[in-house]
Amino acid sequence: MPLLREKEGLELIVWPEDRECDRSWLLDNIPGATGVLATLSNKVNEEFFEIAGPSLKVVSTLSVGFDHVDLVALNKHKVRLGYTPDVLTDAVADASVMLALMAGRNAGAGVTLVKEGQWPKFNWAPFFFCGPQLSPTSFTPKRTMGFLGFGRVAQATLARLAAFGITHCIYTGNPASSPDTALEERLKEQHKLQGIRRVDLDELARESDVVFVLAPGGEKTRHIINESFLRKMKKRSILVNAARGTLVDSDALAKALEEEWIWSAGLDVVEGEPKITADHPLLKHPRCVIVPHIGSATFETRLGMTTLAAKNLLAGISGEEMPSEVEVSKYV
Amino acid sequence: MPLLREKEGLELIVWPEDRECDRSWLLDNIPGATGVLATLSNKVNEEFFEIAGPSLKVVSTLSVGFDHVDLVALNKHKVRLGYTPDVLTDAVADASVMLALMAGRNAGAGVTLVKEGQWPKFNWAPFFFCGPQLSPTSFTPKRTMGFLGFGRVAQATLARLAAFGITHCIYTGNPASSPDTALEERLKEQHKLQGIRRVDLDELARESDVVFVLAPGGEKTRHIINESFLRKMKKRSILVNAARGTLVDSDALAKALEEEWIWSAGLDVVEGEPKITADHPLLKHPRCVIVPHIGSATFETRLGMTTLAAKNLLAGISGEEMPSEVEVSKYV
Repeated sequence: MPLLREKEGLELIVWPEDRECDRSWLLDNIPGATGVLATLSNKVNEEFFEIAGPSLKVVSTLSVGFDHVDLVALNKHKVRLGYTPDVLTDAVADASVMLALMAGRNAGAGVTLVKEGQWPKFNWAPFFFCGPQLSPTSFTPKRTMGFLGFGRVAQATLARLAAFGITHCIYTGNPASSPDTALEERLKEQHKLQGIRRVDLDELARESDVVFVLAPGGEKTRHIINESFLRKMKKRSILVNAARGTLVDSDALAKALEEEWIWSAGLDVVEGEPKITADHPLLKHPRCVIVPHIGSATFETRLGMTTLAAKNLLAGISGEEMPSEVEVSKYV
Repeated sequence: MPLLREKEGLELIVWPEDRECDRSWLLDNIPGATGVLATLSNKVNEEFFEIAGPSLKVVSTLSVGFDHVDLVALNKHKVRLGYTPDVLTDAVADASVMLALMAGRNAGAGVTLVKEGQWPKFNWAPFFFCGPQLSPTSFTPKRTMGFLGFGRVAQATLARLAAFGITHCIYTGNPASSPDTALEERLKEQHKLQGIRRVDLDELARESDVVFVLAPGGEKTRHIINESFLRKMKKRSILVNAARGTLVDSDALAKALEEEWIWSAGLDVVEGEPKITADHPLLKHPRCVIVPHIGSATFETRLGMTTLAAKNLLAGISGEEMPSEVEVSKYV
């Protein structure tokens, strides 16, 4: 905020409440704007651009993802798009590892059990409340981490998991490109892996002990984790989604948990969030642990994101080079 | 169980229920026993030895800790003690990292919020639900992990944290011994740390971003984390206890959270567990995340522990060398 407030010649209109901005307020206030700083919950679509009008030069989103932005409409209206990559990589990687551990170790059910005062009734026995171990043991010397999408966050997550002793990494990539063998060699050596390989979806499902969903959202990837994928997964495997809710078919996942095709799931995002009410099928299962989209929610990272978004906005307004601009031409 | 059942000439008496064994059943069944396989919840004290009688050669505990065993009484009755170190190191280190992440990222409150169907009412704002980030950022380039006790689990926890980019490690050790500089040098290089140093309790409290309590329980360490220690900690620091509940004064911790001396706490153990009812002072605080003593609760580790405990028992009965025997003479 100081960056924006202290900018000379800038008229600043700020949503006054400490919650997501109402659509009607947004549409009432964007006509004639030169730039708009938006968040994931603001649909930036044809309606948005038409109401904003031809003065609009830049939209700066406080997120690394931009599936809430209609890129075709943006391009048509000759508006530039700023985003906040890199600054949230570590926070989301931390959260991804946390969710893998929580899902494996029954942490959701554990927290609830203690919170509800049920611990005194908890009958201890050697295999009660057990789950599959993330780090390898003599019984499970091979631990394979699978990544659906292998960008910055996935690689930062892999780096953390390596220290838990995981042995193999598999990942999916754009089938149109060939695998980056130099990257694979570097990661294999750096993380002392026994193997790293690009695979197809089928093998990702069959071989992974944990599948980390870390691909972009949008129509192309909608429900890429569906019943067919989940049915192929190992019985003691874990699904982690720290990307976008749309990638996972919630009904299929609820069925997978109910019928024990997989062990558990750790979700930072759910399709249709935040409208996830207590009767949602995923909330019924004790081995589905869900946190409310907090992947990047650390003070330090959100300060980094807000600073970058403000800088993108100012650069876009004055027609200068933006610190982080989406290359829209690559997508339309 | 197969190891014990298939042992010729062994009469096996097994508690028939899938919960902790009743004291009265235990005392009714140990007279004349040659060996007893016990768990943390079985007090192995003078009463136990007197009732078991002179036939008792070995107690094999299914745990790495043995503060439930009266070593003076054990020694007096010339009984040997088996335990299960090493096999649970990785599982507890995994859980320690999980608790540090959960405490920092409001995962306890997050799980509860979603579970109770409150996500739709959750008003998103850039700094809502934020916590301090475990991995370093440009705003917090120095991240110091503090260990109260620096044994196997602490070192395995450090190895995992190193991959999150933490920069400094401080730890407490037995003041009677001098610091192990060779170990420090090795760990510093291996984990690419900027610094590693043995410190006193005062410095551990003042300098740590996360304090990991990983020391043995018992009278000597009771309430070592007390009001005085907690008052010295940083405002955004985190306390993790994956050792024994007795090490932390729960009332002092509740006050520390209430009055915001520290940011949050992640506990696998609480003094007086499992009798932690819903009115326990620690359960009132949203930033105190508690799981029901699941540090070693993975299938693989519990199988490793039960196998080792059975082997210790059999070796003790036949007077052979035990795979893992407590050197009782060091403690009495």
